[in-house]
Amino acid sequence: MAGGTSTPRTRVRRLPKRGGYDRAAIDPILDEALIAHLGFTVDGQPFVIPTLHARVGDVVYVHGSAASRTLKHLAQGFPACLTVTLVDGVVLARSIFNHSMNYRSVVLLGQAEPVTEQQEKLEALVAFSEKILPGRWDEVREPTAKELKATSILRLPITEASAKVRTGPPGDDEPDYTIPVWAGVIPLALVQGTPVPDPKLTFDLPAPRWDRLPKRVK
Amino acid sequence: MAGGTSTPRTRVRRLPKRGGYDRAAIDPILDEALIAHLGFTVDGQPFVIPTLHARVGDVVYVHGSAASRTLKHLAQGFPACLTVTLVDGVVLARSIFNHSMNYRSVVLLGQAEPVTEQQEKLEALVAFSEKILPGRWDEVREPTAKELKATSILRLPITEASAKVRTGPPGDDEPDYTIPVWAGVIPLALVQGTPVPDPKLTFDLPAPRWDRLPKRVK
Repeated sequence: MAGGTSTPRTRVRRLPKRGGYDRAAIDPILDEALIAHLGFTVDGQPFVIPTLHARVGDVVYVHGSAASRTLKHLAQGFPACLTVTLVDGVVLARSIFNHSMNYRSVVLLGQAEPVTEQQEKLEALVAFSEKILPGRWDEVREPTAKELKATSILRLPITEASAKVRTGPPGDDEPDYTIPVWAGVIPLALVQGTPVPDPKLTFDLPAPRWDRLPKRVK
Repeated sequence: MAGGTSTPRTRVRRLPKRGGYDRAAIDPILDEALIAHLGFTVDGQPFVIPTLHARVGDVVYVHGSAASRTLKHLAQGFPACLTVTLVDGVVLARSIFNHSMNYRSVVLLGQAEPVTEQQEKLEALVAFSEKILPGRWDEVREPTAKELKATSILRLPITEASAKVRTGPPGDDEPDYTIPVWAGVIPLALVQGTPVPDPKLTFDLPAPRWDRLPKRVK
């Protein structure tokens, strides 16, 4: 699984068989995850904030208000860490010790760069929109110049990243297989419920169809 | 919503109406979240890793292998940040700019303390077990002394924390309400699928019942 994005800082040390540095392992996880957790350090204190992200080719975009202290800080080029995690299931073993989770995660290290060029800014916004609901961009009002100005977008190049994945059944200690308890995996997934129309919706329109939602929302 | 856990470092600056510092706001979010993202800094580089967490009273526990470099680092008392995020829905507005997510998140700052006392270690492990599946502890093999030794547990006191919540319909600009597009919220939740028995399961036992799962997994 080793590839161009492995460095001593991203190498998966614990249970290295779960690690991957190949873009073929990394990109689908980044794409399927609806949100990311973005880490940065201010005066020695790490902060972790949830944020929408979107990958376009070899970069991951994050965005926020131009007034955001987080984005202003990151835009200065301080080191950042963007992590996404997909929780796939709870792994029930015969011993407490061997209980686990099935998951897919990506850790991406790097320095954020502010996106200043208008065209790239728009492309990033389209990517966020596609992430929220494919096709939405064409149905709603596009951003005004003022709204674009109020939005900061940062770019994180995918140059130093690792994926970590656990799948499959529990691994128990040999003597424990005689313990008469159910063991296996309870799959978990982020799924959509019944759409709730805006009370201010005056048009008789159907809610977006489920199959228009991204693949991750089954 | 202001309370004893607010400091200048945790104050919610952007959209402060979404912020809360009261334990009554913070604890249920910590408890409902299945995993946390833990941030720490090594040589100026922030790292964010997904991890199981469990709140017991006024502390949040995280755990891992005693050989984990992350836990060894954190146990030295460096500043940490534990963040949990519940994604509740996608908010579809009439303009791209007003699209949003409904979510509940908690950011907890502090220094991790290693748990060394055997009784507290066991209590933390029971809390992790309850988080994965209530009642599981009593059904499976308890940890051996060797397994306990191989497990590091860290304690983060809930002294500096904030909650951030967005709920409800989109907020659109007045002129946009005439745009004939569906608007509202598509609720999202982590739900369980059909249990997958371990291929090595030789006992004819029912899978854990759905209603035994924590409340967050509806």
